[in-house]
Amino acid sequence: MIDLRSDTVTRPTDGMRKAIAEAEVGDDVYGEDPTVTALETEVAELFGHEAALFVPSGTMANQLALTTLLHPGAELLCDADAHIVTYEGGAAGAIGGISTRTVVGPTPGALDVDAWLAQVRLPGYPGLPTTAVAVENTNMRGGGAVLPYDDLVRLRAGVPALHCDGARIWNASVASGVTFAQYGALFDTLSVCLSKGLGAPVGSLVVSTAERIARARARRHQLGGAMRQAGILAAAGRYALEHHVDRLADDHARAARLAEALGADAPPTNLVLLTVDDPAAVVTAAAEQGVLVSLFGPRTVRMITHLDVDDEGLDQAIRVLSSVLGG
Amino acid sequence: MIDLRSDTVTRPTDGMRKAIAEAEVGDDVYGEDPTVTALETEVAELFGHEAALFVPSGTMANQLALTTLLHPGAELLCDADAHIVTYEGGAAGAIGGISTRTVVGPTPGALDVDAWLAQVRLPGYPGLPTTAVAVENTNMRGGGAVLPYDDLVRLRAGVPALHCDGARIWNASVASGVTFAQYGALFDTLSVCLSKGLGAPVGSLVVSTAERIARARARRHQLGGAMRQAGILAAAGRYALEHHVDRLADDHARAARLAEALGADAPPTNLVLLTVDDPAAVVTAAAEQGVLVSLFGPRTVRMITHLDVDDEGLDQAIRVLSSVLGG
Amino acid sequence: MIDLRSDTVTRPTDGMRKAIAEAEVGDDVYGEDPTVTALETEVAELFGHEAALFVPSGTMANQLALTTLLHPGAELLCDADAHIVTYEGGAAGAIGGISTRTVVGPTPGALDVDAWLAQVRLPGYPGLPTTAVAVENTNMRGGGAVLPYDDLVRLRAGVPALHCDGARIWNASVASGVTFAQYGALFDTLSVCLSKGLGAPVGSLVVSTAERIARARARRHQLGGAMRQAGILAAAGRYALEHHVDRLADDHARAARLAEALGADAPPTNLVLLTVDDPAAVVTAAAEQGVLVSLFGPRTVRMITHLDVDDEGLDQAIRVLSSVLGG
Amino acid sequence: MIDLRSDTVTRPTDGMRKAIAEAEVGDDVYGEDPTVTALETEVAELFGHEAALFVPSGTMANQLALTTLLHPGAELLCDADAHIVTYEGGAAGAIGGISTRTVVGPTPGALDVDAWLAQVRLPGYPGLPTTAVAVENTNMRGGGAVLPYDDLVRLRAGVPALHCDGARIWNASVASGVTFAQYGALFDTLSVCLSKGLGAPVGSLVVSTAERIARARARRHQLGGAMRQAGILAAAGRYALEHHVDRLADDHARAARLAEALGADAPPTNLVLLTVDDPAAVVTAAAEQGVLVSLFGPRTVRMITHLDVDDEGLDQAIRVLSSVLGG
Repeated sequence: MIDLRSDTVTRPTDGMRKAIAEAEVGDDVYGEDPTVTALETEVAELFGHEAALFVPSGTMANQLALTTLLHPGAELLCDADAHIVTYEGGAAGAIGGISTRTVVGPTPGALDVDAWLAQVRLPGYPGLPTTAVAVENTNMRGGGAVLPYDDLVRLRAGVPALHCDGARIWNASVASGVTFAQYGALFDTLSVCLSKGLGAPVGSLVVSTAERIARARARRHQLGGAMRQAGILAAAGRYALEHHVDRLADDHARAARLAEALGADAPPTNLVLLTVDDPAAVVTAAAEQGVLVSLFGPRTVRMITHLDVDDEGLDQAIRVLSSVLGG
Repeated sequence: MIDLRSDTVTRPTDGMRKAIAEAEVGDDVYGEDPTVTALETEVAELFGHEAALFVPSGTMANQLALTTLLHPGAELLCDADAHIVTYEGGAAGAIGGISTRTVVGPTPGALDVDAWLAQVRLPGYPGLPTTAVAVENTNMRGGGAVLPYDDLVRLRAGVPALHCDGARIWNASVASGVTFAQYGALFDTLSVCLSKGLGAPVGSLVVSTAERIARARARRHQLGGAMRQAGILAAAGRYALEHHVDRLADDHARAARLAEALGADAPPTNLVLLTVDDPAAVVTAAAEQGVLVSLFGPRTVRMITHLDVDDEGLDQAIRVLSSVLGG
Repeated sequence: MIDLRSDTVTRPTDGMRKAIAEAEVGDDVYGEDPTVTALETEVAELFGHEAALFVPSGTMANQLALTTLLHPGAELLCDADAHIVTYEGGAAGAIGGISTRTVVGPTPGALDVDAWLAQVRLPGYPGLPTTAVAVENTNMRGGGAVLPYDDLVRLRAGVPALHCDGARIWNASVASGVTFAQYGALFDTLSVCLSKGLGAPVGSLVVSTAERIARARARRHQLGGAMRQAGILAAAGRYALEHHVDRLADDHARAARLAEALGADAPPTNLVLLTVDDPAAVVTAAAEQGVLVSLFGPRTVRMITHLDVDDEGLDQAIRVLSSVLGG
Repeated sequence: MIDLRSDTVTRPTDGMRKAIAEAEVGDDVYGEDPTVTALETEVAELFGHEAALFVPSGTMANQLALTTLLHPGAELLCDADAHIVTYEGGAAGAIGGISTRTVVGPTPGALDVDAWLAQVRLPGYPGLPTTAVAVENTNMRGGGAVLPYDDLVRLRAGVPALHCDGARIWNASVASGVTFAQYGALFDTLSVCLSKGLGAPVGSLVVSTAERIARARARRHQLGGAMRQAGILAAAGRYALEHHVDRLADDHARAARLAEALGADAPPTNLVLLTVDDPAAVVTAAAEQGVLVSLFGPRTVRMITHLDVDDEGLDQAIRVLSSVLGG
């Protein structure tokens, strides 16, 4: 089975399994898991921030970050296609009490900085001011688009606080050459995910100041995200950071090859969006031949390359999909 | 003092004060206030709905209506300039746990139906579906714009549930000739306000099915909006409905006259938006000469005509503002 | 009809209606209603606090006060029979996100200070600490009991913050001789109600520091409790404070007479609780003869004396109830 | 270091690490992790329920269970010392919007069924009715007390819905002989924990009907508790269920031996509470000699036996603590 549905489906490699099995652990609720602490320190340093917090999911990482920036009733401005308002069960409102306003991009995932700045309501506005803005980089609904660094710099200058949903910021950095430290300097808070392209089984981190991370830690407890011997998971994350970042370039190259073979637009990173007449039929027909892809929209199929799809797998996927599309 | 800041500043007339003083009242928490009950019945019938609920403010009316349509975590789609996300303290998220996504109009208040429908996520969408959509008619940030009836009909056909923030629906009906019953037929829930153009001191209503209004009643209690001898206020509302609806045409005519005199765009209803270089300076200078207007945006001053501004007051306002603008 | 169900059923007197009709009003959302402002100032001064805020109900007054003392997730300790956890639709949790822990009194409404202090979790406690404590004075479920002043003083000394649900604090003061200023000095926040024994149609106030009241004002807006020309209601409240406080002694005397005639325990203030075999039958039979009383518990009927029940009405109620109970 | 602070500090054994390293995994968000699914099925069957859900913590398990029983604003009745209101960051109110009322036991952890039933407000109560009741078995603040089965049966008969915080229900069953199926039959929902006495690194489960578990699954996503290749953790849980349940009897025996040696009350399960004059001093002095115990109250030290404390470790702990206490 070649699984191109998502980069979340990756399974731990043998090396990673070994790291997991040998992980030194402690009770992280007491702050005593050395592997979790090491991971948090490494990720904070990578982005040039003071502190980081390990959590069970990207959704929790985003929601905790937002909670440190926005009290209930405060306004967050983000993309109308952002993961935060699309794939997190409405948590920003339901759990955080946050008031979200959104901007529809000219195309999905594109960042029209002027349009965003026009919607930011600065202090003095005779209504609810904008307390924070969130971007997603790479942008999933935008086909893995990398937000241009200069646009982010300009946006940063015009907003009171900026969060980055960086679930796939690894891909953004590898594709753009912008360093993690450069990205880190732009944002008050970031979420980063270890279980998508990096291939760890479970886990994301919130990255920010020590003060905000202390509050996020208390809030994580309240949300039920505090885990005991979480070093079992953190060990996989540390392994992934060491071994699986640079290789994302391979995923990007394979995505480009897949897109070219199928006549799709050149993908910015590891996502390929393919326009077809009947995506549900494509999904079904490909699955019958052992290739899994996703329904993404009324005319769109999505394919994502990742750690578990090598060149041979990709060739097989191209053969099957070409046949399905040609049929 | 000529007060053009808002139609919320209206004071009860002598006739209304008499109605208030003579109101028959009871304990409305026990459902025993005959004046409240009469008002609720009349307003429900006016819009062709089963039931209505009297509440202390337009914000509570909107929020109760939304609560009957959306559980915590569900998505509401509305205008990025809607009162619901602009002037209600972020209550949709903070109190209702609602996830709001917004559409930025081509111009403020304009309803681009295709753009809205493109953002509605119907059941089957691989993420959070859109549970309800809200419009505001007339639209305050849009300068009192009346949403075209045909557009509303088309929007209605493409969305799962539709709420109308009808704080100024009286103005919309008077300006467009669309009846209250016609408007009522379009919406699952409406909020309507008695203390803006209609001139009652306090109060709004939620209008919907009997089942939804029963739930809104329980939620009103939880929000602290249940009042005892509320007939004191409802009497003013009944008086306003009887005496102050048709006369809104006078407010519209005066707004048109004011706009023309000042060189502003022709107003659709009772709001005049005037573009100036330094709105704060205009607000201050006019106030010093006894005319109150509002700061509305970085280049915009707002003026609203209402019950307490007669022709003479308008003439005076025109004189003062012309002088201020000419200076 | 003699209505002894509650002191919330009182209707405005002629004098009060005159005060209402002549009320000077403005837009209180702009802070421009002189009657509201006067009422808020008077009530704040009465309790020796800096500020007060007029709101539509006792529930909103309590909930706003609690919000100023407790952030979401913080613990409030109160009586298991408190209005806050019994009659407010679960708002402390649902709206305020507050974690309530309760103490069951030795008898309803009794304040066992040692038992309360044993439940207060002070800073350093290895779990959620107690952020605030709330008492209710008089205590409704406790039959209108007046909490002993010395007990309140002792409780005050052992808790981090103390709120008083003072919906009937007027009765407590009249019955105990403890002044409003003495009560005010004990509490960080109070709610007081104008529409129970005082006979105003609508309205309560939150009383506290200027800083807390400013936050309560913002939160009132979010809850939909901000009203426009609320002076219409505040005028009734000012009238009630001037004319209807001292006369509560009459209600207490009538309650005592009623209790004695029916063989109930002597009431501490204006509530009479009567133990009967079948309270529902008593409620029905009395109603058929024009006397309304409340079902209060599986063996208890409740009667409350108030402004609208004079000596003649009370005589009539005694006749009817004696007959019903004797039957 | 002998760590008696909690049974949460246990580290995975070699056998468990092997099970983890070899775990078959998949993407559990897609419902495709076979190890997670197997664990959920096994635990549901163990308690005779239809379904179970794997989550990152006991707090999330409790809160998800409560969410399936209580909508925001509904009342939960529980022990004033329950984990739910003591150690979960106020989540029931803050996240679930639940209104908690609590009963103070005659002694901590004791279940006075009559006192509880007197506080249950059944439908028809003129206020907020009790929607669900929660017990904790064993009861941590009650020193690991096992709630008598007959009391639970009687409580069950008088309440509308019953949740069991069964973080240590394994200990309760081993100590009492009541089977998991018998316990399961008493409760509408249970939470059970794998990372306390059972020694798994991370994870709890919610157990209930298929319908409730489906709702808990959606809510888990919203709280950020959905994990991808969670089979890494579930494999440890399955190993723990197979190998670490019966051996809890050893922990109980060691706790009894520890209590006897130190002159503490005989412990019902694996918790020993010791009354001392200065618990903080005892904690510090013991730690200096390599034995970790917990501060539990102003006069109480807590010790918990578990998987990582064998007879030799216990002897050492007894020596050190005897010396510290004798000093």
